[in-house]
Amino acid sequence: MQSSIPNSILGYQRVPDSDSVYVDPAKLTRFCSDVFQSLHVPESEAIIAADVLVQADLRGVDSHGVAHMNLDSFYLSGLLEGSINPQPKPAIRHETPSTALMDGDNGMGLIVGYHAMADAIARAEHVGSGWVAVHNTHHYGMAAYFAMMALPHNMIGISMTNAGPQMIPTFGSQPMIGTNPIAIAVPAHKEPDFVLDMATTVVAGGKFEIASRLGLQIPDSWGQDSSGRPTTDPNVANAARRYMPLGIDRTNGSHKGYGLGASVDILTGVLSSAGPSFLLPKGYCGHFFGAIRVDGFSTVEDFKDRMDQFLIGLKNTPPEQGHDRVYVAGEIEHEVKLVRSRHGIPLDQEVIERLRKISGRFEIPYEIELG
Amino acid sequence: MQSSIPNSILGYQRVPDSDSVYVDPAKLTRFCSDVFQSLHVPESEAIIAADVLVQADLRGVDSHGVAHMNLDSFYLSGLLEGSINPQPKPAIRHETPSTALMDGDNGMGLIVGYHAMADAIARAEHVGSGWVAVHNTHHYGMAAYFAMMALPHNMIGISMTNAGPQMIPTFGSQPMIGTNPIAIAVPAHKEPDFVLDMATTVVAGGKFEIASRLGLQIPDSWGQDSSGRPTTDPNVANAARRYMPLGIDRTNGSHKGYGLGASVDILTGVLSSAGPSFLLPKGYCGHFFGAIRVDGFSTVEDFKDRMDQFLIGLKNTPPEQGHDRVYVAGEIEHEVKLVRSRHGIPLDQEVIERLRKISGRFEIPYEIELG
Repeated sequence: MQSSIPNSILGYQRVPDSDSVYVDPAKLTRFCSDVFQSLHVPESEAIIAADVLVQADLRGVDSHGVAHMNLDSFYLSGLLEGSINPQPKPAIRHETPSTALMDGDNGMGLIVGYHAMADAIARAEHVGSGWVAVHNTHHYGMAAYFAMMALPHNMIGISMTNAGPQMIPTFGSQPMIGTNPIAIAVPAHKEPDFVLDMATTVVAGGKFEIASRLGLQIPDSWGQDSSGRPTTDPNVANAARRYMPLGIDRTNGSHKGYGLGASVDILTGVLSSAGPSFLLPKGYCGHFFGAIRVDGFSTVEDFKDRMDQFLIGLKNTPPEQGHDRVYVAGEIEHEVKLVRSRHGIPLDQEVIERLRKISGRFEIPYEIELG
Repeated sequence: MQSSIPNSILGYQRVPDSDSVYVDPAKLTRFCSDVFQSLHVPESEAIIAADVLVQADLRGVDSHGVAHMNLDSFYLSGLLEGSINPQPKPAIRHETPSTALMDGDNGMGLIVGYHAMADAIARAEHVGSGWVAVHNTHHYGMAAYFAMMALPHNMIGISMTNAGPQMIPTFGSQPMIGTNPIAIAVPAHKEPDFVLDMATTVVAGGKFEIASRLGLQIPDSWGQDSSGRPTTDPNVANAARRYMPLGIDRTNGSHKGYGLGASVDILTGVLSSAGPSFLLPKGYCGHFFGAIRVDGFSTVEDFKDRMDQFLIGLKNTPPEQGHDRVYVAGEIEHEVKLVRSRHGIPLDQEVIERLRKISGRFEIPYEIELG
């Protein structure tokens, strides 16, 4: 089962390409915000949307950052075509003290997700936890962004979204469920916070795209060609949109990846009435957000100290031969952010070209590169 | 990755052994309840504990049922030795309207779990959702039992537990996390309810035990020997207690199984202060329970109809070659329960012998077999 696929795809030892261009995170955020404002997004909301994207790049989650600032991609094409509302007024349609259904008013998920998670946090302040399901919304970027909004409030944050069908159910021959990610963020004390953000497929769609850009083969356990045969060609799997559930096959637990993906579909699509992956109108999504106050169970100080003890214990696991450390979820992204905050975000030439094109199209100065 | 391991181990086409003995579920419940009462468990609580075990056998989850009614296993040995309190008074130590920390008063998890989930359900009745973390408790049986308690209340139920270290973290050489299962139960209308109950390792510990009893080899992706090498011998993996996380290796997403197992540890062990898997006192566990009212988001009727539509859609996925249907989580267990409720529960000779021995020891008539 070991594979020689480079770490740059797996993402745990990220090395920028030699021809990457380093950009300034603050200037990049300003640039993206200006683009959204050109498309009639109000300034306060445009800053939020830009921050969701740039935080993904800062954390090394390049598949969910400004690579999507593309005239052909969902955010900008949706705003340009008028299929996405640039000025959504998300509204609560149904609620209890700790739960709510939010109508995203056809806005970008980047903005709707922010308001929905803020609502979950406000409910948690009042009654200990808050849970918000969202319909009438779109692609929301990096799932972890919203879960992490809970951290400064000393809450555990949860974020999920569904998307069009890409996962093949166990024993099935057709994709029925999205890559349906789950993110959970938990505050620690001196240690970096625990942040898990995982697709419920073996790998997220972005891994196929990166392998494709780099011209590399993929393991045949990741996806299928359009006939349902395993493939090592990332372009073939990506074109077919046929990804395996976490676990790969029944013998190794694919029914668990499939079951988790279905659970995300229930919380994001069925509970919200957005629709599960296989019934979603094209381009739409459902989201689900949660916030739980850690002081709903013990004091914040005691909890965070126990978290540190837990995380340090895991990191101190003796590594297996060939590896020099054991990581905890979110640790690599935390380290990448420290480096990129200081030295800038490396963007590859293709992404730089897209941003230059957008700069010309909206007459926004291209002033993002580090001097 | 395909394996020829029999379906009787994987559990999706359960065929009893030819020498299985069929027992009556009601009589078996009464028998187990009488045994617990002999050990000073009050009648009302003994009935609960017995029901948690027998429901596992009824659903075909043989690894978590009366096979554990064994003088050498944790329930009975703990009660016999006095290390488990037969008459626990679980108490809330910290709370908000939707959250609580429960002290299990050193009781069996079978009983403590029932009361904790009932508390979560009561909180959900009041404020839409309820979340209860539990410490000072022990092995609680089948995780799904407690999640399913939410179903008649038209709630989504969640149940998790941790346990001593058995999972090897990605890149690690030593078990640090339990098999840490997650169960989620969601009510449907005409369709059987959705019930996912999964260990966060490739397979649960019980699969190794069953392979061992049947004298079968296992895939080398499930566990390791005591030196950290893959093994196909279930006895070796089981003795070493070294199981792989769901995903197997980093290339195929073991960091996700590891991350999920760690998330369960946070909710059950860190939040509750029971301790994460690698710090649990021997025999102790932490649990975490949740209940969410589906009418906290829309009407119960609309939700359940959407669930039916979702489940029917998944079942109608065209199957791949060599398989005749696609299942949803909990469907097989539902079907097994229909059969076993009518025709009795098949127990293997080893389990029957244990029950006969217990019958003699506590002078409780062995009257459980079907006529």
